[in-house]
Amino acid sequence: MKLAHLISIGNELTGGQTVDTNSAWLAKHLSAVGVRCTRHVTIPDELEPIRDAMLSASQDADFVIVTGGLGPTPDDLTREALAAAMSAPLELHADSLAHIDTYFRMRHRTMHSANRQQAMIPRGAQAIPNPHGTAPGIRTKLHRAEIFIMPGVPYEMKAMFEAAVRPAVASSDAGIVEERVLRTFGMSESEVGERIADLMRRDRNPTVGTSAAELIISIRIVAHGQTPGDVRRMIDADAVEIRNRLGDVIFGEADDTLATAAVNTMINRNLTLSTAESCTGGLIAKRVTDVSGSSACFVQGFVTYANEAKTRLLEVPGELIAANGAVSPQVADAMATNCRRISGTDFAIGVTGIAGPTGGTSDKPVGLVHVALATPTTTIVKELHLGDNLRRDQVRDRSAKAALNLLRLELHRAAPSHAMRS
Amino acid sequence: MKLAHLISIGNELTGGQTVDTNSAWLAKHLSAVGVRCTRHVTIPDELEPIRDAMLSASQDADFVIVTGGLGPTPDDLTREALAAAMSAPLELHADSLAHIDTYFRMRHRTMHSANRQQAMIPRGAQAIPNPHGTAPGIRTKLHRAEIFIMPGVPYEMKAMFEAAVRPAVASSDAGIVEERVLRTFGMSESEVGERIADLMRRDRNPTVGTSAAELIISIRIVAHGQTPGDVRRMIDADAVEIRNRLGDVIFGEADDTLATAAVNTMINRNLTLSTAESCTGGLIAKRVTDVSGSSACFVQGFVTYANEAKTRLLEVPGELIAANGAVSPQVADAMATNCRRISGTDFAIGVTGIAGPTGGTSDKPVGLVHVALATPTTTIVKELHLGDNLRRDQVRDRSAKAALNLLRLELHRAAPSHAMRS
Repeated sequence: MKLAHLISIGNELTGGQTVDTNSAWLAKHLSAVGVRCTRHVTIPDELEPIRDAMLSASQDADFVIVTGGLGPTPDDLTREALAAAMSAPLELHADSLAHIDTYFRMRHRTMHSANRQQAMIPRGAQAIPNPHGTAPGIRTKLHRAEIFIMPGVPYEMKAMFEAAVRPAVASSDAGIVEERVLRTFGMSESEVGERIADLMRRDRNPTVGTSAAELIISIRIVAHGQTPGDVRRMIDADAVEIRNRLGDVIFGEADDTLATAAVNTMINRNLTLSTAESCTGGLIAKRVTDVSGSSACFVQGFVTYANEAKTRLLEVPGELIAANGAVSPQVADAMATNCRRISGTDFAIGVTGIAGPTGGTSDKPVGLVHVALATPTTTIVKELHLGDNLRRDQVRDRSAKAALNLLRLELHRAAPSHAMRS
Repeated sequence: MKLAHLISIGNELTGGQTVDTNSAWLAKHLSAVGVRCTRHVTIPDELEPIRDAMLSASQDADFVIVTGGLGPTPDDLTREALAAAMSAPLELHADSLAHIDTYFRMRHRTMHSANRQQAMIPRGAQAIPNPHGTAPGIRTKLHRAEIFIMPGVPYEMKAMFEAAVRPAVASSDAGIVEERVLRTFGMSESEVGERIADLMRRDRNPTVGTSAAELIISIRIVAHGQTPGDVRRMIDADAVEIRNRLGDVIFGEADDTLATAAVNTMINRNLTLSTAESCTGGLIAKRVTDVSGSSACFVQGFVTYANEAKTRLLEVPGELIAANGAVSPQVADAMATNCRRISGTDFAIGVTGIAGPTGGTSDKPVGLVHVALATPTTTIVKELHLGDNLRRDQVRDRSAKAALNLLRLELHRAAPSHAMRS
């Protein structure tokens, strides 16, 4: 199995202003093509430490993946450091300069002279095209290693990795590693862990592990084998077993979200949705419309932050608000029910709650949220007690997740997905 | 100034399943007490690499902060690696064992025999109490460095750092480091860099550096000095100079966003806002209501995804949509203008565009967005050509930023903030 070392460059990383997310992303994607990361090193924007890290890594690893320090400003020194490590001069790379020039002209902007340094490449190295930015990547051999240098901007780095680095490092003889991730919502990580404890033994192949992020518990199945068929069969068997044990808390795989799960089901069934949001302030509409193609199901959304807006736009009676408070099951119910009728949609979501940090009372503390779902036959209201130790964005995130999950489960209840497949 | 190296231990880190957030947190908190991090290294759960990383760091840094690998399972090898680096045997630390035992008894659980290894400390090293977990930390001198070993669990690590590590590394004679970050929008990183190139010279104090993330260019000023007054004066002087050169592309500092900049100005001036969104699908309302206290300015928002919704809710004439298309300056103008009137707010934002990946034509490609701002006197419409190589979420993010920036600049134009201060 080939080994990789990762080097991340930037004062904002060593100083802690920015969390390095590139390294984890790269390690995961390298692992998927059979390359194992055995070290990440983070270095400030200083020539000699960068050069020394490159020299040292290139003696210990088969691949050295460097990110960052390719910008146009004087503190971007990765090119110079590579040239020093290679004992080669930097030379202007004409194609890259032309690309940078085109990049600016297509955006009706003028190329700054500072961007010219981004087209400098050490003699003997190759440029890697950057379709999404100005700085080309750089590729060269150094000692035992193949070095790849990419921009630190995650979006540019990821595109460059997919196009140029992955194909270069993926090896056919190292065996195959594949993974599948199942996403769950509504069960604690320890309960998920207990239900699949036997599959999570460390000596198994596939390995099965869980991780939690903002109430989404992910189950990662990683299989090692000799052929794609082998690993696929092993992963399929574990996935089926886990689905049997966990049921409808599993909402999808890989990049699925609660929103994609609900929206794609609605699109498939020609169902429509509208939203009426108070404390989530547009977050649910945003998540629904994050899904490409959501215009086929999402008709309209209301963000009724002020009480008058709830009355004016959603016809929630002022007396109902006065009698129960804006944060009440009655108001959530009226928001969803009226939103559905006004919008002429099959389903409507209504949310009202106290996101904090201010606005809570002993009676109605921060974290109290009412989530309602109007369906063709009824309106369901759920009361959430999210606790007053959460940040505002966490209360909003969990409220949005609860609402989308309510919709997802209702769609599932009406027509379970395994029935749909047959 | 004292230097620190950070070492993070764990297969889940080198393998990329977990993003290392401890290192950024530690670097920031060390910097605040005058200790500069010059390297982060991430190592798998393997004895010799951990030992070698400790030995190497202890020759290059004054402080080595190690996190992770203190758990009760066989793959937790940090204790053994330190013992190997110190050439000292591991010994049972009675106080730590008593603490672990108490920890379990207080939780009505029995101590597992595996937890006993967590009380092992190399001879000559000191245990650091862990109030929030079982594993004690370890502190010792090695070569020129003081080594601190802490659990990888962020919650336990942070409490231990505050209680035991920060007081030990904070030095009064090493001088003080402070930083300030200015946030800009609307100018490329290279242009920002050119305008302040002289301040970015590497031999200066303060150091000034730039970084870019999703069109926000951040300028970081880091000053080293002997007293808080010194560093404050140096930072102030640079910040004033940078503000003079860049003007209103600077929208704030530190955690400010375009939304907080606009919303807080509106709250201060008792101004109100409403939103009418098509392609951004609620994202602008979401960002506005991210700001705590935004209920004082944000009245209501419409997400008019379907054309009929634009007509029904915002009274955009069907003929106007038919004649110009839903994505047109005319429709953006009508959305904002009507939204402002219907909502009775001082300002209203209207956005219509093609977020992609589908829905583009040669005439109106993905990335074409019209952003409108209705003010008390007029409606401004801006046409954005974001390019068709962006992801859907990027088109939406940039559209929202452009809209919030339009609002911010209009508020600034009406009453520049320096005038407000006087």
